[in-house]
Amino acid sequence: MTSHSRQITLTPIAVVRGGRSEVFEDGWGAEVATLVLDPDVLDPNATDGLAEFSHLEVVFYFHREDRVRRGAAHPRGNPAWPRVGVLADHSPVRPNHLGVSRCRLLEVSGMELRVQGLDAIDGTPVLDIKPYASGFVPRGPIREPEWIAELMAGYY
Amino acid sequence: MTSHSRQITLTPIAVVRGGRSEVFEDGWGAEVATLVLDPDVLDPNATDGLAEFSHLEVVFYFHREDRVRRGAAHPRGNPAWPRVGVLADHSPVRPNHLGVSRCRLLEVSGMELRVQGLDAIDGTPVLDIKPYASGFVPRGPIREPEWIAELMAGYY
Repeated sequence: MTSHSRQITLTPIAVVRGGRSEVFEDGWGAEVATLVLDPDVLDPNATDGLAEFSHLEVVFYFHREDRVRRGAAHPRGNPAWPRVGVLADHSPVRPNHLGVSRCRLLEVSGMELRVQGLDAIDGTPVLDIKPYASGFVPRGPIREPEWIAELMAGYY
Repeated sequence: MTSHSRQITLTPIAVVRGGRSEVFEDGWGAEVATLVLDPDVLDPNATDGLAEFSHLEVVFYFHREDRVRRGAAHPRGNPAWPRVGVLADHSPVRPNHLGVSRCRLLEVSGMELRVQGLDAIDGTPVLDIKPYASGFVPRGPIREPEWIAELMAGYY
């Protein structure tokens, strides 16, 4: 398993400023925050053309979480929902502590991106920012279990 | 900028086996590959409940790419499309070389996930696998420039 075990070192390209300072599970839709780009990593024209997109896809690091779940658990500890494996859940308690979320892009201002609805707290390191393209969504009908629709009902 | 510069070290949770062995830009939709989970990182019940989802979201590392683009360029080098910043493009030539894609989940078999339409080549390290949930898509209408619809036309 040598190809598995090689570690990968990444450098944050930005940091989240503003928005929530503590994690709450629900109601992220109204939160506004700023992605402050790191000028040591990105040139000023890294954002050229970005304002033509209404939404971003952001890859970030759950920097406050150090627990790791490798197996199954009830999502949010709720016994009303089935025990599922870590790969079937979006919990931050996971290997590598990576989050991937979509948010609205409100404004591009120099090296700052103002966004709405990003579920990451103040101080979160950002590892990548991509434009949200409708051509990248899944092809074919989506099937998902009922518990995740219940979990997401109040998320945004 | 100290919070920006702290590096983050990740351990692949899986590797892509099968599918393409070289990068081509288009026609990924029919490709079938296997995500082989690393038993040193994940327990056997990490996939419990995963088969109830039709699609996955996969975070992977473009391990064959070592060029980094920090500013603007024509997507795919095509002068018919505007020069855009690296954050407005999905090119693998970017800081951190992270890819985020959706694919169909065909089968869960022990520590192997058979998938279709993943745009990652044989040997690609996988950093995270999440279930695709329709509640995580952007809220509100999507706006995007015309060039990306042209670029995506033959992608899957």
